[in-house]
Amino acid sequence: MEWKEDHLRLLDQTLLPHQSVWKELRTWQECANAIQTMMVRGAPAIAVCGCYGLALAALANEPDLNLVARSLLQTRPTAVNLQICLNRMMAIPQKTFVDLLNAAQEFEREDRELCNAIGENGQAIVKPNARILTICNTGALATAGDGTALAVIRHAHRSGKAIHVYTCETRPRMQGLKLTAWELLQEEIPFTSIVDSAAAMLMQSNQIDVVIAGADRIAANGDTANKIGTYMLAVIAAHHKVPFYIAAPRTTFDLATAEGSKIIIEERADTEVTTIEGHPMAAAGTKVYNPAFDVTPNDLITGFITESGIIKPPFSFDALGKR
Amino acid sequence: MEWKEDHLRLLDQTLLPHQSVWKELRTWQECANAIQTMMVRGAPAIAVCGCYGLALAALANEPDLNLVARSLLQTRPTAVNLQICLNRMMAIPQKTFVDLLNAAQEFEREDRELCNAIGENGQAIVKPNARILTICNTGALATAGDGTALAVIRHAHRSGKAIHVYTCETRPRMQGLKLTAWELLQEEIPFTSIVDSAAAMLMQSNQIDVVIAGADRIAANGDTANKIGTYMLAVIAAHHKVPFYIAAPRTTFDLATAEGSKIIIEERADTEVTTIEGHPMAAAGTKVYNPAFDVTPNDLITGFITESGIIKPPFSFDALGKR
Repeated sequence: MEWKEDHLRLLDQTLLPHQSVWKELRTWQECANAIQTMMVRGAPAIAVCGCYGLALAALANEPDLNLVARSLLQTRPTAVNLQICLNRMMAIPQKTFVDLLNAAQEFEREDRELCNAIGENGQAIVKPNARILTICNTGALATAGDGTALAVIRHAHRSGKAIHVYTCETRPRMQGLKLTAWELLQEEIPFTSIVDSAAAMLMQSNQIDVVIAGADRIAANGDTANKIGTYMLAVIAAHHKVPFYIAAPRTTFDLATAEGSKIIIEERADTEVTTIEGHPMAAAGTKVYNPAFDVTPNDLITGFITESGIIKPPFSFDALGKR
Repeated sequence: MEWKEDHLRLLDQTLLPHQSVWKELRTWQECANAIQTMMVRGAPAIAVCGCYGLALAALANEPDLNLVARSLLQTRPTAVNLQICLNRMMAIPQKTFVDLLNAAQEFEREDRELCNAIGENGQAIVKPNARILTICNTGALATAGDGTALAVIRHAHRSGKAIHVYTCETRPRMQGLKLTAWELLQEEIPFTSIVDSAAAMLMQSNQIDVVIAGADRIAANGDTANKIGTYMLAVIAAHHKVPFYIAAPRTTFDLATAEGSKIIIEERADTEVTTIEGHPMAAAGTKVYNPAFDVTPNDLITGFITESGIIKPPFSFDALGKR
């Protein structure tokens, strides 16, 4: 994702890893559509894209920026980062295009720094030769920087810890198999991809030392919404006494939401499951329940890797830095 | 699957649910290939197909039936049913084509009866309105009859219990999404398909009353090899205090294998994960670990639904009937 004078350039993630196609987004509606269709995904990246969308609305002299902000927010309900960043933008007094563009660019810079700090702070829990299990994509494609969980992995690799990564393919959209593998291949980080349901067997045979996942929204008590399957990993990690960490920046913490049961879980279309890249898999008439996220209760989470160190609930605004 | 005078007719499961194509298998090598490529799968169905293969070898006057039996056995190492049935055929004194064909047809009839008894006996653990979670395909496609776990489901539905089935799609080959859904649609049994990693969330929200899975090999102590993901379901079921049953006929019990650690787990090709119906999913160079099965330890299994009732280890030959 990069801002170019009067538009946002975005790598279309729905076409990866087959094609690297950069799209030019010139209106806030195009930004909203990019989020909704998952051309861009990952809670921090969604936030940056949405903020540039609000700046594009100002550039187009949209009369009601409140309405634009609400529309952008409605694209995907579960991740909180966009809401937190848009709230900060809407609190700017003048909200000229330049004001909003500056704010969006500041969020992008800030997210890069947050990723870096998460990567560094995570080293405390990654031992040499660690075999790390992760899910979905939490890397450069999901953030403005190195990622969240994947930043921890990148920093461990760069510091010579000889880690090995196991990536859950992450049905239904396969962000693990398509996006995380693509990022790990580029940086030559050793990894093995597995189907999601093989994670339990890997832990059973002592092949996983630690699980690190990202987050889309962390409630005040530490309950964490993340990609469907994260809760499954947390339960099986607890069963096998494997530490389970969440890596996320302060923009993912929603201290206004008391607990996980209050988090809205987005359900997406049946066709994400019944078709793959347009090819039908299931017989006509097959009904699907397709929640995009699940909620892991705080008691299954060993710790939260943040820019302020590794923390546990109750969280304070101080511990999470200036919001 | 049906025997026709001098050949075996087989519904090619790799083409379901898109096309219903019956293949004619006229040599034992074609039978071996059908098992290896999963044109036919499911431990009891593999056994019946392999037995007809041995009969076809006798029809072709193969000089060394021992060699044929060993080759048939090597197609897929984890399921034990084929081994048990081939051993019984190789114990026949003359092994003429007619002898072996009679034996194969007897196994087919017997499997139909075993399925029926499993379906009946399973009713003891299915309450009215039960929401039943299952994995892979354990139905008519996997056996000569109504199935194993799916026979329990069928009998519950036919007896008016108003059940609802949740089917794990079962990556990588999607037997749940492709085959089980196809069977349930035909019998108008209400069901919902989910990605495998959503099973934990369903249990968390109290939407599953019981898990019923099939088996490929059950060791003497009750440790059970079944489709990859079954162990994951057993762990999360235990975490949520949801009963977890294995449904299998006596031909799946391997009393000569003391425990699960002795069971050979078949690993299949990377391409089962990295491509879907020939379409590439992952970037070139993506390495995969693709075990076809996992082993669920006996202490996570509430009971075994068999033709002799619902049993627990230690198993005896008496309890499992005449082998």
